[in-house]
Amino acid sequence: MEKKQLHLGLFLMGSGHHIASWRHPDVEPEQVTSFRYFAEIAKKAEEGKLDMLFLSDGLSFHELSHPAELSRFEPISLLSALAAVTNKIGLASTVTTTYNEPFHVARKFLSLDHLSGGRAGWNVVTSYYESEAKNFSKKEHLAHQDRYIRAQEFLEVVDGLWGSWEPDALVRDKESGVYFEKDKLHQLNHDGAFFSVEGPLNIERSPQGKPVIIQAGSSNAGVNLAARSADIIFTAQDNLADARAFYRSVKDKVQAYGRNPEHVKIMPGVSVYVGKTYEEAVQKYEQLQQLITPEVGQNLLSEYLGGFAISPYDVDGPLPENIPETNGNKSRRALLIKLAEEKQLTIRELYQYVAGSRGHRLLFGTAEQIADDLENWLMEGGADGFNLMLPTFPSSLDEFVDQVVPVLQQRGIYREDYSGSTLRAHLGLLEPVYKRPILNNP
Amino acid sequence: MEKKQLHLGLFLMGSGHHIASWRHPDVEPEQVTSFRYFAEIAKKAEEGKLDMLFLSDGLSFHELSHPAELSRFEPISLLSALAAVTNKIGLASTVTTTYNEPFHVARKFLSLDHLSGGRAGWNVVTSYYESEAKNFSKKEHLAHQDRYIRAQEFLEVVDGLWGSWEPDALVRDKESGVYFEKDKLHQLNHDGAFFSVEGPLNIERSPQGKPVIIQAGSSNAGVNLAARSADIIFTAQDNLADARAFYRSVKDKVQAYGRNPEHVKIMPGVSVYVGKTYEEAVQKYEQLQQLITPEVGQNLLSEYLGGFAISPYDVDGPLPENIPETNGNKSRRALLIKLAEEKQLTIRELYQYVAGSRGHRLLFGTAEQIADDLENWLMEGGADGFNLMLPTFPSSLDEFVDQVVPVLQQRGIYREDYSGSTLRAHLGLLEPVYKRPILNNP
Repeated sequence: MEKKQLHLGLFLMGSGHHIASWRHPDVEPEQVTSFRYFAEIAKKAEEGKLDMLFLSDGLSFHELSHPAELSRFEPISLLSALAAVTNKIGLASTVTTTYNEPFHVARKFLSLDHLSGGRAGWNVVTSYYESEAKNFSKKEHLAHQDRYIRAQEFLEVVDGLWGSWEPDALVRDKESGVYFEKDKLHQLNHDGAFFSVEGPLNIERSPQGKPVIIQAGSSNAGVNLAARSADIIFTAQDNLADARAFYRSVKDKVQAYGRNPEHVKIMPGVSVYVGKTYEEAVQKYEQLQQLITPEVGQNLLSEYLGGFAISPYDVDGPLPENIPETNGNKSRRALLIKLAEEKQLTIRELYQYVAGSRGHRLLFGTAEQIADDLENWLMEGGADGFNLMLPTFPSSLDEFVDQVVPVLQQRGIYREDYSGSTLRAHLGLLEPVYKRPILNNP
Repeated sequence: MEKKQLHLGLFLMGSGHHIASWRHPDVEPEQVTSFRYFAEIAKKAEEGKLDMLFLSDGLSFHELSHPAELSRFEPISLLSALAAVTNKIGLASTVTTTYNEPFHVARKFLSLDHLSGGRAGWNVVTSYYESEAKNFSKKEHLAHQDRYIRAQEFLEVVDGLWGSWEPDALVRDKESGVYFEKDKLHQLNHDGAFFSVEGPLNIERSPQGKPVIIQAGSSNAGVNLAARSADIIFTAQDNLADARAFYRSVKDKVQAYGRNPEHVKIMPGVSVYVGKTYEEAVQKYEQLQQLITPEVGQNLLSEYLGGFAISPYDVDGPLPENIPETNGNKSRRALLIKLAEEKQLTIRELYQYVAGSRGHRLLFGTAEQIADDLENWLMEGGADGFNLMLPTFPSSLDEFVDQVVPVLQQRGIYREDYSGSTLRAHLGLLEPVYKRPILNNP
């Protein structure tokens, strides 16, 4: 029997995931709005046979953000350009359902899917930052619960629009003059709490059946949405025991929704430092940690805790109790509070950890040691793959592709080459099902 | 003194502008959602040193549309991909202000501008089709007048967001750890009738100062919007006398708004048929005309007349009087009624004309004759350039670039090579002015 196969996504982020990466001597931070820079990274990831590239997104400016997020490309336009210079690698991006319209989103991802020959993926989020509301003529951010109700309806509309053209609707018979078959196009006529959308879409069926759906929230509402609708789940998991518990509970939920658990891939984020020795890997991390100013660290931690002002508290003391919940991202806040408690971290230790990892797991070692760890999580039921949050671009990607990938390949848990051309093929998700019955024209 | 220089845009449309182009033996209509097909066309246009490529857009499906519009790429994603395979040519697209948000639109065009190194242009429209409303949770289409009020406010917000980063806001000083200068970023705090937008944008200042603005409506409201805000005006003009009158009136309006008339380029659409002889050029047209089915012709005419049902009338009789105005595109309707009256066309002759030209001027001849005509309009004050609506792709582009462009170059009225790398440079519009005063952070 073939060994279980590892899936790898590259979370592509300007100068790198470490918050101080832009100060590293090898990094050229002015490249974060240079297309050629991203093109080289994408080609290297494709050389490493990764399943996909992934871009995060946000719709407001935050001076306390990771520097690579201050000024950045709109993700669909960047992925479209990357589609032109790559051939196989999947191209996925975050787009929020809270400040968008389903017709636009359905169309953009289907357009990317055609441009790339079936490589598009959409990470569905409901907007983390409350300030996005103010760029979209709203007085306040939609409440957490309502965001998820809207997201579920949004997804249904998008799925319906993606299914509005039957695959063989376009005939283009030059002889008879018939361009398309009218009865193979379908109006959606959706009329719901948030949206009314007639359809059909103005672009034909996706080359991969439909674009891949990713979900990243670990709140109850997020996991339910994912279990119903997602092909990939991103998650932050700090240790294998927790990861296994999360993995099992999500797969159970997927099954409870009548879906095949094999068809949902769980990919925890991981920040990887590769060295010739374990010590060298740790040194690379320490070098970056020294480049973090205390102000940056405190601000980042405040932001991850939903805007809670952390600077009045002793940096060498514990995290204060009863940090209030906000209307933002609940799961990241909860993970950090739990982490500080379990590992007995001071505020300084916690912000250093957060600044280095962005709330995800840190992994140090030689290529063999890194491969051991990834293989262990794969075999022990903690993950189907990983979303790689590498500290510095392009250097840590070069190291991962040149050193870790060959080890994974030798062990038979990772592809030697792509066997298909679509993201769905890379993930082994070949036959998407349209959940919504297709309606006829009235 | 250097001769007045001609500007050329290529209106890129699937299989070609002629409605029956897809049935032509040389055309491969299944290529309209193939990126490689568009990439070859874009490279050919760049070989011809054209100022820009231009894509139209729409947000609903219409079975009576030009076949190339039934299933098509979302334009910003296609242009982003084309940016990756071209180096100099401008990349412009239609985006409506009626069913979009200014933050998204400002960001998408600025992202395209960075991807392409300063080649982005935005054709501002207010949505022609009433049915778009139904894909965006609206009961009915916004009234014509309100669409233009919204468009003007939308443009002001976008302009403000594009100006929200001063050009030198990003410092990225590795030594001090200062990534950007806070006082060089500005909130917009726009609070208007349609939008309230805080800003700043989450992408830095445009490589070309700001993307180029195009306007295409010839209604009074459209021309006023253009005179205030546009760098390029597209227009449908059937003869030189009318074109000169339009040209003069627009340039006067531009001056009345306190702008330099030289900084607004007027580009009528023109459908060009090139042959070894005039007769061969006309034969190419006739060959395509014979491929139009009567039903397609009648339906197209109905659509251009705002949905007025034309099939009950005798096809060999005149256009009925008193065709009612609708809430759609007024200027195209008026042009067709005027044309039928002046040239005494029957319904059949009118729909054949429309089907062949899409309401724009038809031009037949040898390369020399085509060049004569374009030069005449340029020198006689009818145009600063043309938006080329070529009948079949890629063949009529190949003919234009290989045969007409060298003649224009020999006459000294068209560039031998690009002298700059941005769309603004090609157009001679080097210093964009931000109309809105930049506000400080509160």
